[in-house]
Amino acid sequence: MTHTEGKLLDLIDSPADLRALPVEALPQVCAELRQFIIEACSVNPGHFGSSMGAVELTVALHYVFDTPYDRIVWDVGHQAYGHKILTGRRDSFGSIRTLGGLSGFPNPDESEYDTFTAGHASNAISAALGMAVASRLRGDSHPRHVVAVIGDASISGGLAFEGLNNASSTPNNMLIVLNDNDMSIDRNVGSLNSYLAHLTTSPGYNRLRLRAFNLLKRLHLVTDKSRGAILRFNNSLKSLLVREQNIFEGLNIRYFGPFDGHDVVKIVGVLRDIRDMQGPRILHLRTVKGKGFPAAESEPWKWHAPGKFDPATGRRAADTPAIGSQLKYQDVFGHTLLELARADSRIVGVTAAMASGTSMNIMQEAMPERVFDVGISEEHAVTFSGGMAKDGLRPFAAIYSSFLQRGYDQLIHDVAAQRLPVTLCIDRAGLVGEDGMTHHGALDIAYLRSIPGMTVAAPSSGAMLRSLMYTAAHTDHGPIAIRYPRGSSDLMAADTPMEMMAVGRGRRLRDGSAVAVLALGPVVADALKAAADTDTAVYDMIYAKPLDEDILAEVAAKGCPIITVEDAAASGGMGSAVAEWMAARGHAATVTRLGIPDDFVTHGTPAQLRHICGYDTEGIARAISQAISK
Amino acid sequence: MTHTEGKLLDLIDSPADLRALPVEALPQVCAELRQFIIEACSVNPGHFGSSMGAVELTVALHYVFDTPYDRIVWDVGHQAYGHKILTGRRDSFGSIRTLGGLSGFPNPDESEYDTFTAGHASNAISAALGMAVASRLRGDSHPRHVVAVIGDASISGGLAFEGLNNASSTPNNMLIVLNDNDMSIDRNVGSLNSYLAHLTTSPGYNRLRLRAFNLLKRLHLVTDKSRGAILRFNNSLKSLLVREQNIFEGLNIRYFGPFDGHDVVKIVGVLRDIRDMQGPRILHLRTVKGKGFPAAESEPWKWHAPGKFDPATGRRAADTPAIGSQLKYQDVFGHTLLELARADSRIVGVTAAMASGTSMNIMQEAMPERVFDVGISEEHAVTFSGGMAKDGLRPFAAIYSSFLQRGYDQLIHDVAAQRLPVTLCIDRAGLVGEDGMTHHGALDIAYLRSIPGMTVAAPSSGAMLRSLMYTAAHTDHGPIAIRYPRGSSDLMAADTPMEMMAVGRGRRLRDGSAVAVLALGPVVADALKAAADTDTAVYDMIYAKPLDEDILAEVAAKGCPIITVEDAAASGGMGSAVAEWMAARGHAATVTRLGIPDDFVTHGTPAQLRHICGYDTEGIARAISQAISK
Repeated sequence: MTHTEGKLLDLIDSPADLRALPVEALPQVCAELRQFIIEACSVNPGHFGSSMGAVELTVALHYVFDTPYDRIVWDVGHQAYGHKILTGRRDSFGSIRTLGGLSGFPNPDESEYDTFTAGHASNAISAALGMAVASRLRGDSHPRHVVAVIGDASISGGLAFEGLNNASSTPNNMLIVLNDNDMSIDRNVGSLNSYLAHLTTSPGYNRLRLRAFNLLKRLHLVTDKSRGAILRFNNSLKSLLVREQNIFEGLNIRYFGPFDGHDVVKIVGVLRDIRDMQGPRILHLRTVKGKGFPAAESEPWKWHAPGKFDPATGRRAADTPAIGSQLKYQDVFGHTLLELARADSRIVGVTAAMASGTSMNIMQEAMPERVFDVGISEEHAVTFSGGMAKDGLRPFAAIYSSFLQRGYDQLIHDVAAQRLPVTLCIDRAGLVGEDGMTHHGALDIAYLRSIPGMTVAAPSSGAMLRSLMYTAAHTDHGPIAIRYPRGSSDLMAADTPMEMMAVGRGRRLRDGSAVAVLALGPVVADALKAAADTDTAVYDMIYAKPLDEDILAEVAAKGCPIITVEDAAASGGMGSAVAEWMAARGHAATVTRLGIPDDFVTHGTPAQLRHICGYDTEGIARAISQAISK
Repeated sequence: MTHTEGKLLDLIDSPADLRALPVEALPQVCAELRQFIIEACSVNPGHFGSSMGAVELTVALHYVFDTPYDRIVWDVGHQAYGHKILTGRRDSFGSIRTLGGLSGFPNPDESEYDTFTAGHASNAISAALGMAVASRLRGDSHPRHVVAVIGDASISGGLAFEGLNNASSTPNNMLIVLNDNDMSIDRNVGSLNSYLAHLTTSPGYNRLRLRAFNLLKRLHLVTDKSRGAILRFNNSLKSLLVREQNIFEGLNIRYFGPFDGHDVVKIVGVLRDIRDMQGPRILHLRTVKGKGFPAAESEPWKWHAPGKFDPATGRRAADTPAIGSQLKYQDVFGHTLLELARADSRIVGVTAAMASGTSMNIMQEAMPERVFDVGISEEHAVTFSGGMAKDGLRPFAAIYSSFLQRGYDQLIHDVAAQRLPVTLCIDRAGLVGEDGMTHHGALDIAYLRSIPGMTVAAPSSGAMLRSLMYTAAHTDHGPIAIRYPRGSSDLMAADTPMEMMAVGRGRRLRDGSAVAVLALGPVVADALKAAADTDTAVYDMIYAKPLDEDILAEVAAKGCPIITVEDAAASGGMGSAVAEWMAARGHAATVTRLGIPDDFVTHGTPAQLRHICGYDTEGIARAISQAISK
């Protein structure tokens, strides 16, 4: 790897500067951009692999399209680092994913070039279709081009399919760029991905169709009204040249590709050819995740978000084994699930493109036939779990809190309404830190608590996570949700004894009469620290639903102020349930609810964000002293 | 139409009785079943058209498969009346959709033949896949067949696509029966539906492939392990016989069809041929909605759920124009939207296969280019609205409350996070009555209230619905949700003057000091009636979020008991927000929350169900007198 001189990139403060360069300069821009990303990510961890693979398509899109007037909608946004660097954020790029710095994902509050919220997969086609329709309905005299850039994993999500399915029945000129690196965060699953991997069209067909269109354009035969005719022309052409009908063209979306996604000059040429075509089109680019950094190319799953690394050797800091380090909550989950599954053949694992992120891969490696990674398909993951539970299995579905929002209706309709024994292991619950706004798991307690028959628990320790999973495996309740955060637990090894945790029973950890703190999840430890040297009772509620009414009665009898603490939205969550209970009985105790405020929270370290939100140890201590002083 | 003697149907108390008949008797069974449905639905309104179209496939499935051991999973379940009649519920069928009677949809609590909750579209493939996997993992010695029956509208939903996409990458022998009547509740939209309408394969190919498979089976060459070989064999065969690749086969699901869905003997033959094949398969049947009842065949959209009708003449009771009748809330919405759209070119309408159900068709007929019916795609409907709002339009998205659960994540991520001016017009909010458990709009206030930046309103009258829509169109807030019930408003014409309704301001309608009732939505009228002759203050809160804190302070100052009333889940809803506020300030007032209890509510008339849930006038009056007597 050679360090190229950053001469061209230094001149690009906006895409207009890029567009002033001759096309021959673009490979150099790409090389510089790639090197910039390597150096920045080596010291400031981020989503490396996807952005490396998207360098050429990013440069080509900003070169061909008149951004920001033309709209580029990035799906997920893992791949948008090059986009950020080219759109005026080169010098601030070192601040990415830090408090007050750039967001790790496209964020419309940050830049007019970031056209839509990104973070949850599969939304770009629908959002771009909306923008394309808006431009058409406004009758823009200079029609706006709208481009959705979506990966092959994201396009398999149900939302993306709904967008595709509607794209051709709604008049629009949207371009979909399929960035196909044949990888989800882990690996791709599902037949669409296998289809894409084998998809080829005749290069002769691709070339001929482009030339035919360009001819029509030069002859001024292409207008809005001629769209139908061109489509028919294309379909006739196709029937002469290719044997198989393309799945996208089956959906009436014109398909071009696959092309080499790392040949920037070629991509520019193709984009120019198809830019002004009428009707929805899809451009299929084959890319390599981690392109240009050999270590990342060979182990792309490790380099999705590699943490810090040495840009010269490719050695990841995370490769250095830690000595005596604590297990992450996700690993406690992963080891415990395998242990439970070995003892009960009914237990199966389900995840949605988060096998390594949730540590479901521990069971997956040991018993691959009993783990189902369904890809980016949270809706299906939940309903599929319901189907398995209906016929006797005990699915444990591990899904991040903010992504489980996608399966909300399915939880109600396909699981809870039948009281099916599905265990939801909700990872990344609470503030997740650097991934920021779209990834915080703030709302799960609120949206789960109102579902009839749902049990909602949150362990305050790694050992308790094990016991709650054990409880879920050994009770005949309906659905049970167990939520736990990103990051380290207090355990060094997932071998603590497991015990039944009576549903709806919490624990008094500390007695006191001036204030009562009712906490849920790992923040219980913060509550205990904050209560030190005060006359404060501290309870570990364990269950947000059903609440332990004995504890509530005990606390009500004290008549002292109540503080609830949870790493979750304070409106609608466990604290709200406590307030409901107290108010229903007319208790005069003040219920102060600490947790995530009723706002979208930015990115930063979890400690920084909990501090800002006022429920770190310091915040809880402040609330205690305010309550005492009242 | 001749009335056939019900001799055969009277003998069928379970599918085993059906299977004892010779195949030649099945057309007679179908004719009798159809006549039974006509007579039953003429006096007891229900989902008529879909069930009429599914008669032959229903008979054939129960004839060929060993139900209930084999699983039939009905998608939506509109079409399952024949299934209910054949599975031991013939004599109780007259009670359908009434309190204590049969459910209008398949319901596992009602019968072992109803294998999974149905009501929300597109879940059958995922649920059936779960069951197929469960049977395989258990190693059933007598392998269980699993059949998903899904309509052409449902299969275009994202959840169904996720199920299809995973069906072939997960080992299973599921059969998908595509009941293609080329109709959603209204009409089908989207390119998949247009694709299906034009899909044909060579009859010679269909026949040849079946024969080839049967030969292999007789030669005992078909085993689990030979699945790949057979698939390759089929693909080779196909490449000889058909020019175009089928979209389902692109997803690696073997496709058979299309066949005439009303030729019961033929369907039985095909089902027998493909029943024991390995791997996922799809059988495409062309059916006619309303088949066998001429009026329903010619106007299928009117006969989806026609209400009462004359079985002899086909005259619907609903065809008789009512004199001086009140407008439904949905019609107030429909007329008002058109009025607002005429005044503001930025306003567009969005719905998801509910154009007539929400009365969005009023604007659709007047300005078709500004209304987008995206089909059964609630996720896309919300994100697409977000995209349009991002580029300057003012979308009004009309979606039923319980179906909007499908777009929950999109509301958070694609609308609220960007504070986009999307107006959600949430129809069928609260208890809907006869459609029952899956269709009640119980949870919307709870799940919307915890979303940052969301405004949540509920009009207490038709005129207020107009004013809230006017307010949404004329404010630069972020998203606003306006929820209103199924059924009649108090208006005879949608021409009342519209006024701005200050966001977060309610109204005191009646003063009093013994009790304060804080009500939301049309139940305000019930609260007023209940308060008559008592010293009770009644407030119309109008907004569940933000709450009117002046009202809360006024009520807190009274120090009297508080009763909240809403046609929504009482846990997590407006009453919960009131409890949070009171408890946060340590007010000793008792907050009694009336609303839908924390349980799944059955079917019945809305009045019956509100009575059971305790928030009709009588229930509110009882709560008032209990509060006073304390």
